Amino acid sequence: MSFDEKPGHAVDLSHHLSAVARARTVSPLTDFHKRYAGKPGVINLAGGVPSPVYFPWTSVSGEILVPDSFPLKVEDEKSSLSWLWKLDKERTASFTVHKYPQHPGDINMGTALQYGPATGLPQLQDILREFVGKVFQPAYGNWTTLMHAGNVDGWGKVVQTIVNPGEAIICSEWTYPSALASARPYNMKFIPITSDSEGIDSTLLRKTLAEWDEKSRGMRRPRCMYCVPVGENPTGITMSARRKKEIYKICVEYDIIIVEDCPYYFLQEGEYVPKSERGPEPEMNDETFIASLVPSYLKFDYQGRVIRLDTFSKTICPGAHLGWFTCNPMFAERLERMAEVSTHAPCGFTQIHVTSLLLEWQYKGYMRWLKALRLQYRQRRDYLLDCLAEEFHLQSSMSTQGYTAGALIYYASLKPKRSFVSLTEKNEAFSRPVFSFVPPTSGMFVWLKIHFEEHPSFAIVGYKALELKLWSELAEAGVVMAPGAVFAAIPVDDETVGDGHFRVSFSNSTPEEFKKVANIFAIVLQKFMRKQAD
Amino acid sequence: MSFDEKPGHAVDLSHHLSAVARARTVSPLTDFHKRYAGKPGVINLAGGVPSPVYFPWTSVSGEILVPDSFPLKVEDEKSSLSWLWKLDKERTASFTVHKYPQHPGDINMGTALQYGPATGLPQLQDILREFVGKVFQPAYGNWTTLMHAGNVDGWGKVVQTIVNPGEAIICSEWTYPSALASARPYNMKFIPITSDSEGIDSTLLRKTLAEWDEKSRGMRRPRCMYCVPVGENPTGITMSARRKKEIYKICVEYDIIIVEDCPYYFLQEGEYVPKSERGPEPEMNDETFIASLVPSYLKFDYQGRVIRLDTFSKTICPGAHLGWFTCNPMFAERLERMAEVSTHAPCGFTQIHVTSLLLEWQYKGYMRWLKALRLQYRQRRDYLLDCLAEEFHLQSSMSTQGYTAGALIYYASLKPKRSFVSLTEKNEAFSRPVFSFVPPTSGMFVWLKIHFEEHPSFAIVGYKALELKLWSELAEAGVVMAPGAVFAAIPVDDETVGDGHFRVSFSNSTPEEFKKVANIFAIVLQKFMRKQAD
Repeated sequence: MSFDEKPGHAVDLSHHLSAVARARTVSPLTDFHKRYAGKPGVINLAGGVPSPVYFPWTSVSGEILVPDSFPLKVEDEKSSLSWLWKLDKERTASFTVHKYPQHPGDINMGTALQYGPATGLPQLQDILREFVGKVFQPAYGNWTTLMHAGNVDGWGKVVQTIVNPGEAIICSEWTYPSALASARPYNMKFIPITSDSEGIDSTLLRKTLAEWDEKSRGMRRPRCMYCVPVGENPTGITMSARRKKEIYKICVEYDIIIVEDCPYYFLQEGEYVPKSERGPEPEMNDETFIASLVPSYLKFDYQGRVIRLDTFSKTICPGAHLGWFTCNPMFAERLERMAEVSTHAPCGFTQIHVTSLLLEWQYKGYMRWLKALRLQYRQRRDYLLDCLAEEFHLQSSMSTQGYTAGALIYYASLKPKRSFVSLTEKNEAFSRPVFSFVPPTSGMFVWLKIHFEEHPSFAIVGYKALELKLWSELAEAGVVMAPGAVFAAIPVDDETVGDGHFRVSFSNSTPEEFKKVANIFAIVLQKFMRKQAD
Repeated sequence: MSFDEKPGHAVDLSHHLSAVARARTVSPLTDFHKRYAGKPGVINLAGGVPSPVYFPWTSVSGEILVPDSFPLKVEDEKSSLSWLWKLDKERTASFTVHKYPQHPGDINMGTALQYGPATGLPQLQDILREFVGKVFQPAYGNWTTLMHAGNVDGWGKVVQTIVNPGEAIICSEWTYPSALASARPYNMKFIPITSDSEGIDSTLLRKTLAEWDEKSRGMRRPRCMYCVPVGENPTGITMSARRKKEIYKICVEYDIIIVEDCPYYFLQEGEYVPKSERGPEPEMNDETFIASLVPSYLKFDYQGRVIRLDTFSKTICPGAHLGWFTCNPMFAERLERMAEVSTHAPCGFTQIHVTSLLLEWQYKGYMRWLKALRLQYRQRRDYLLDCLAEEFHLQSSMSTQGYTAGALIYYASLKPKRSFVSLTEKNEAFSRPVFSFVPPTSGMFVWLKIHFEEHPSFAIVGYKALELKLWSELAEAGVVMAPGAVFAAIPVDDETVGDGHFRVSFSNSTPEEFKKVANIFAIVLQKFMRKQAD
């Protein structure tokens, strides 16, 4: 492998390009076009480009919330609910984008709604460059950004660019199903590595790589790692800086490209503190806010082997379908070629609206928005867990095993009135947990481990059948959670071992709904745990 | 192969799915989610879906041209120029879309900017269904539509869905470079079929298929045909209804899927009539307008073997990145799975703006817009050709050879003042063409064949070097055209045979620029044709 000879520059990683990525060509037309397009006095008849006269919009406008629409402090319990789910008084600003620029450098529809390069509007590129530099602070100099249509699109492009059919990809034991679905049809194989509470286990990762036997495995050692290191989907695990450094070192040693799919980066809610013990929020300026966030892999990436995927889906809106890669320029160039035969440039209307929003807000305003958003999600998480604490008996202890090892784990048992055992056994039953979880410090999800071993039919039908059964009973009772089995990196074969899970999202429900969810969950679990499976 | 047993329904074409397409899975989460999402009373915690409260827009608005902004008649020469390139007085209408619906069924940002299905907004689906039914009139009953992000994205998805690596794709001799670039990296091979003026030669197509020898070719007989049947890019050829029927029949016989990439369908300008002979435009209602357009392959597609790609890029704006497939439901379902791991749903802002525009205009208004757009492009084409007629001596005759066979071809020679031969040879030189072309009846391009055989160095350097040289000299003189070689379905090996071409777009220049282009072209050609190559 190559080592960094020019400090500050990405090392040569071109051997990582897939056969397909190598074969992608620069559009000769683009190439010819670029040489002369935009030169003053040159008349361009090369492109099949409609006149902006025929774009039916003369202007588009947006009414947008001001950056400080959501608070940075929880004043009291009442305020925490009154503004949590709906803004009483919206304070807004507005922008209008015209077909033709009113001043030089204006965003305009003549450009944004025209064919354009896959790199997107220059105004947006500038915003992202500033943002990535200040927030993620890549450890090498010649990093670059490139737009994509959201992280699923971004990962789909990465897979086609650095993995060949039949090759292996390292991932977590439980991971994002769409990421699996992008690669599996190309016969790419996922190699799950077990996690502890700080993320995938570096010792296990090293062991897996060191002991890799091409012959028995039927494929070469993996050269790509997929991860959701902050608020992992579905487990909620956030990889620590320490673990990232360990893993980065292993990836240098074994020449692995790290794909950091990081949609939840700004939803770092911090530790869960039970309701009675909560104190006031610390005040933070932009620098202390950034410093309080777990660093991106980019911060340790002195070789340029990280491809980071960011998206506006969680911080602005999913329908923008807008995100970006941060990576070395060699990968970016090949990814741009891929974009030219798929999504091409980002959608013009999205570029107009998102760029106008960010120009109106400015870096400072967007930071203000992100700080408040984090608090919103903290309160949502806290509220859901508070509701569970009301309906169940929660006991916490330090976990030493499995993917929760090193974290404070909460065991939930049915409250006496709902205990599923007879009165004489009550004291014992009171302490037998029906589910457990580690409160996530980031992201949108609580990952509940359901203690199906407490179910009378467990020994006969196994956990997977029970997971589906409980899922259906909950859904019939009016609560839909995501069943754990769909997140398995390797589909479950043996249904008699392993654990059952539900992924519970706290991103989009009202306080009343969370209360109801906890209540229904307790009622359904109580019935479920005492019943024989049909 | 299968034949249609249930009349009105697509035949079973599932054997056409690529290995990758077969392996694509329905997201289990989507599946679980769908079963209960939206059911009244059900609380959905399954999705990682942000609350619309956090979408920063409270409303977006658009100011749009009225559908009759452009005329349906050319009143006189002056009017034809005064409104051609810029609207003096814009008449507009406006729409506003709010975060939450004001009335049931309203488009709203809460839905459009949220995660959504790859099928797009129901309002847009309804519009497309009406449009396709009325305009393209598919010959079978259970056709369906599915959104994509533009025809390049659409074709990229089709290639991955019905062609395996190493397989062959039929196309025209000269075709769209991005279509080639989507498939070539997967080692898919293009099999070019020569055209005449009605499109690819059906006799040659049949011969190629009938004589296909797997062994000598190293691949199985092609099962996919890619075509741009209206205003073909780059040649401008429009396939006749008769030819489409012949080719469809062959495709039934040899079990071939027809991919109809048709961005220029509504730019059917009609026959070019020299300036002095032009009469008034006939008036047309929507039905006669539709009847005047060459039919889509869909109209003959009684088996459901056509995948048609439509886009709003040429009729509304390219930056919308919005288009749709029309195809049988089995292909649509597999293409939807592909969308779920790439672009996912169409961009929300585009859906808001395009759907609002079409709802404001209604079907009737959009038809009015398209009729006028066709006239705009007719006038653009006419004006460019009129400019060439002023600078060059044009002579027309019926072509009997090559891809122009059956069409009226125009031969352009230098006017006496610019003749590149000595005065004594003037009469002869006057009749020697320097380029020739068939005026396109559709699309955005004039495809000029340059008569490089007139160049003194032709025998030594061949046409390709001359094409590049002329391209550079034109560009240096301020005119950029697209060099023909980039459109070759099979890259040119032998540079000493074949013809040189330029693709000239008339879609986006002003009358003054067209005049200047013709003038510069004449000056550069005059110098070029008398010079020895360096």
